[in-house]
Amino acid sequence: MKKKNILYAQSGGVTSVINATACGVISSALKNKDKINKILAGRNGIIGILKEELCNINLENIDDINNLKYTPGGAFGSCRYKLRSKRDLERLFKIFKTHNVGYFMYNGGGDSQDTTNKIHEYAKSNNYDLKCIGIPKTIDNDLPHTDFCPGFGSVAKYTAIATLEASMDIKSMCASSTKVFIYEVMGRHTGWIAASSKLSKITALIILLPEVPLDLHALFKEIKQKILKFGYCSIVVSEGVKDQNNKFLVDSDNVDSFGHLQLGGVAPKLASIIKEKIKVKVHWAVSDYLQRSARHISSKVDVTQAYKLGQKSISLALNNVSGVMLTLNRKILHNKISWKIQHTPLDKVANIEKTLPSQFISSNGMNVTHRCEEYLLPLINGESYPKYHQGLPTYTTLKNKILTKKLPYYRLK
Amino acid sequence: MKKKNILYAQSGGVTSVINATACGVISSALKNKDKINKILAGRNGIIGILKEELCNINLENIDDINNLKYTPGGAFGSCRYKLRSKRDLERLFKIFKTHNVGYFMYNGGGDSQDTTNKIHEYAKSNNYDLKCIGIPKTIDNDLPHTDFCPGFGSVAKYTAIATLEASMDIKSMCASSTKVFIYEVMGRHTGWIAASSKLSKITALIILLPEVPLDLHALFKEIKQKILKFGYCSIVVSEGVKDQNNKFLVDSDNVDSFGHLQLGGVAPKLASIIKEKIKVKVHWAVSDYLQRSARHISSKVDVTQAYKLGQKSISLALNNVSGVMLTLNRKILHNKISWKIQHTPLDKVANIEKTLPSQFISSNGMNVTHRCEEYLLPLINGESYPKYHQGLPTYTTLKNKILTKKLPYYRLK
Repeated sequence: MKKKNILYAQSGGVTSVINATACGVISSALKNKDKINKILAGRNGIIGILKEELCNINLENIDDINNLKYTPGGAFGSCRYKLRSKRDLERLFKIFKTHNVGYFMYNGGGDSQDTTNKIHEYAKSNNYDLKCIGIPKTIDNDLPHTDFCPGFGSVAKYTAIATLEASMDIKSMCASSTKVFIYEVMGRHTGWIAASSKLSKITALIILLPEVPLDLHALFKEIKQKILKFGYCSIVVSEGVKDQNNKFLVDSDNVDSFGHLQLGGVAPKLASIIKEKIKVKVHWAVSDYLQRSARHISSKVDVTQAYKLGQKSISLALNNVSGVMLTLNRKILHNKISWKIQHTPLDKVANIEKTLPSQFISSNGMNVTHRCEEYLLPLINGESYPKYHQGLPTYTTLKNKILTKKLPYYRLK
Repeated sequence: MKKKNILYAQSGGVTSVINATACGVISSALKNKDKINKILAGRNGIIGILKEELCNINLENIDDINNLKYTPGGAFGSCRYKLRSKRDLERLFKIFKTHNVGYFMYNGGGDSQDTTNKIHEYAKSNNYDLKCIGIPKTIDNDLPHTDFCPGFGSVAKYTAIATLEASMDIKSMCASSTKVFIYEVMGRHTGWIAASSKLSKITALIILLPEVPLDLHALFKEIKQKILKFGYCSIVVSEGVKDQNNKFLVDSDNVDSFGHLQLGGVAPKLASIIKEKIKVKVHWAVSDYLQRSARHISSKVDVTQAYKLGQKSISLALNNVSGVMLTLNRKILHNKISWKIQHTPLDKVANIEKTLPSQFISSNGMNVTHRCEEYLLPLINGESYPKYHQGLPTYTTLKNKILTKKLPYYRLK
């Protein structure tokens, strides 16, 4: 039997450890040269595959491949694209056939797992021999059936450290300056990232989650109490926090509930409201892409599991497993935590969003419980520093040399 | 002669390395027990001194003192307070006399050096034997006569890394998502922090400085060119950037030029303008206190020089030097850069603001020159990681036990 090629691609918002997964996939594939022919990667996820832009990984330098473990961003480019039609699927399988693709690993969040499932189903219906594996990835931590999602552990660590450091800053100034600090984090529908600020152990902390409609009067009361007790107050807020009518506090159409053009995010809006009401100096921060790309402070647990998932995808595919998403399952033995990689059918994953369970949210709705902390703590464990040269991390840029195209041009609709 | 006490205090916005200076002051004072009696620190800077809130450092654990080198925030608290009257000065010297203070080290930026100078002048005029030393500190890097200001090297490193990482993130998504990323950094009057983003070596970069009035049409053109060439564009903007009429783009009174309540900072405002004009997806970040408290990624050069300045303040004071601010002077020998600590009279420093020289600003006004890079590069060199426990840096909190008060209550006016 002719050896088949593997095709790996990255999808959705990237994380600081998605390339660690790529590194796991590639290094494991390289160790299986007897079973695998070429290693290919889609340029900009599924979009590049549709356009027949396939990077030839075998042309990369091995040091660069190894350094992917320490490099943020998406080394091959990522995309936001939903397969739109049967036409897209037919094109995809023309590409697979033309380039002898027998193994497909798609690395992404909920939407991407849905894409992987569609591809798996199409292969089955059309008797195309494809081993199709979904590898989880999302800072939002909202995929079901897995203890956590690679990318989340690192953003949780970043959030905990940022909350700790900024709170120490404001604490030292609060006697004569700023008394409230608002830090907006990502999380449109789930509060996992905001919750991880709890790990900072800052007691003057309020956490506002998308899972709990915001009660402004209760918030004002809580802020005043924190200021009275600690001299200051740090608020970590999810970008997707909602008002009592279950509407986003800051809507994505950029117009607020009064019809005014909304210039800022949730943090500046809350800052303005609090300043007006409590009459104290307020500062705010929005770290946006900084939080999910901060490879300089990634969690070692996160990096390690991301890498191992990549490796596992190859061994499973070579063992004829297909149509699954890999999952991390937490094991506790003699107080030591480890994760076992298992898998779940893709159709059980697609389009399900895991929010914070109620037992993780404190009774006043503005903090998280000890159980939540216990869940989060192991995920931020350990540091995994990149190498530095002249003060900067030495991140890798790949050549990403595209294979010669063999098929006619395809217009994305 | 009776041994005198030393009094150290922190002032103005804190930095990630101001405690490294405190560590230098204290450890050097501890080594000079034959000449120095007690080591005291003002609680919340000059405010605490006026209130007779003097922390007794001799009661602290030596491990905690040593760990100050790795701890952000202001360990004794800081303040924003200008000496308002002769009354304040008289009170201050009553405190000094009562608590046998013979050495005063004030650690701060421009305003604080002015305070130190006033205290020095008052001591001279009133024949009070006080050795008065100003130790520089400010992330803004705007003090004259010193190669750089401790605190700046670390925020420069943070800015360069944040720009690099976020740009790698957007680069991997730009084919189908965000094309412009705006990152707002501190710097109300000077562009040193924004300039340091250049060290990221990102070519798709635009830098907007307070030194150059913003030409929106030129900016739009530049953004379009970057997107055409690189697929995306990263913009690093100083919070204090001004329009063509030399007015802040976002004014501190929170009302924009149309009289609307301004919810955001410069980044969201620019994002809104660019989205409107260029019709591409724009993301923005404002790191606010995160940048200046980020001890987890401080520059080793910055930490080392901050520490050495603290040490030097003691040896100079014990050698009867007074009325000076310490300065760092860059030496280059066989391509190796080092800094020699010297000093300059306080009255030559007070209220002077060092802006980016014109030869550091590129001809189009939207970037910085190679000369600027050459100046900046050595400042971010080396890492100085704190220790971690369970995924979090182990930062120190001091006991800050206040000496028994001996004087009547003083009301701050």
